[in-house]
Amino acid sequence: MTISSKTAARVPLTGGAGAFNIHRPPLLHCTNCGTRIERLVPPGDGRERAVCPACGGIHYENPKMVVGCIPVYEERILLCKRAIEPRYGYWTLPAGFMENGETTAQGAERETVEEAGATVVDLQAFALLDVPHVDQVHMYYRARLDSLEFAPGEESLETRLYAEHEIPWRDLAFRTVTETLKLFFEDRKKGSFGFHTVPLFAPR
Amino acid sequence: MTISSKTAARVPLTGGAGAFNIHRPPLLHCTNCGTRIERLVPPGDGRERAVCPACGGIHYENPKMVVGCIPVYEERILLCKRAIEPRYGYWTLPAGFMENGETTAQGAERETVEEAGATVVDLQAFALLDVPHVDQVHMYYRARLDSLEFAPGEESLETRLYAEHEIPWRDLAFRTVTETLKLFFEDRKKGSFGFHTVPLFAPR
Repeated sequence: MTISSKTAARVPLTGGAGAFNIHRPPLLHCTNCGTRIERLVPPGDGRERAVCPACGGIHYENPKMVVGCIPVYEERILLCKRAIEPRYGYWTLPAGFMENGETTAQGAERETVEEAGATVVDLQAFALLDVPHVDQVHMYYRARLDSLEFAPGEESLETRLYAEHEIPWRDLAFRTVTETLKLFFEDRKKGSFGFHTVPLFAPR
Repeated sequence: MTISSKTAARVPLTGGAGAFNIHRPPLLHCTNCGTRIERLVPPGDGRERAVCPACGGIHYENPKMVVGCIPVYEERILLCKRAIEPRYGYWTLPAGFMENGETTAQGAERETVEEAGATVVDLQAFALLDVPHVDQVHMYYRARLDSLEFAPGEESLETRLYAEHEIPWRDLAFRTVTETLKLFFEDRKKGSFGFHTVPLFAPR
């Protein structure tokens, strides 16, 4: 599915499907019965959890995965200019929140279709970036662009192939993207690609 | 922190912190205001979501990460016999649901302390296993056991070092553990460890 038309519809920022929301709203009510939850350490647990005083449900809150691609066409990389907040107008690799029922690679392919209208093949795991202060884990796959058919999806203003010397380093949307691209070009110079794990803590 | 005492307290299965629950309870009420949610496709989205008719909140449901270690002491691997359902009494690598605010490696270390009372060092990313039918992604690190000090935590009945020929293959708790151990021993025979991505779909 190639999404090439732009609509006015925008996914809300909080928990957005494509936006990397910085703050997730706190869980205030039980998802099972709607009662106002309490924060306490359940027996046998070591952490404060959202516990329902009515039905006893414990609501665990866990990190979300963001999955994406480094789409490569010959020597160039496909980037997307963001049409949504946060970081409207800045450039990014195609990536977004992983959905239930898919693999990380399927999610990375899907996001590349949705944001860049592009089909990728030969996915290879490249980097996992931990972003603990926003409760996220980002996973990037290297991938080959199948053709020169690409077009901005609803969440992009523009899609463009960039050679290394053309990368808009000061206009990249996220540190995760900057780090991933740096590692990619370093490995390419070396002539061999590894798998990288990168912890990215909050800037001081 | 080494947890060596056993208590009667058990974490509930649904969404449990250490158990790999197969079915997550459906989201029925808005986490923000407690109103009964509706399932519909929001404008600009391509999927049915849990949407609140009162406050308009969209509740995205995303996969959870399970993080763990392959703790290695010389030629042997540390396994834990599970003291909780599912798969009570079966053997596993120390692993569990990743918590907010930590990196994947920190989560893997924490689970190794909690389940096996063991401290690991020199963590190296080894395998990422997608389990889309239960909305999970498992990530294992190879790690070196710092000493022979280990002991079962609350969620384990027993902890034991196994040489390759002693691994209780038929009594392993999860396919993710079986696959990870197979890949580990294959790589060790070759004399070099890679990073592996493994999609594990539902058994037919």
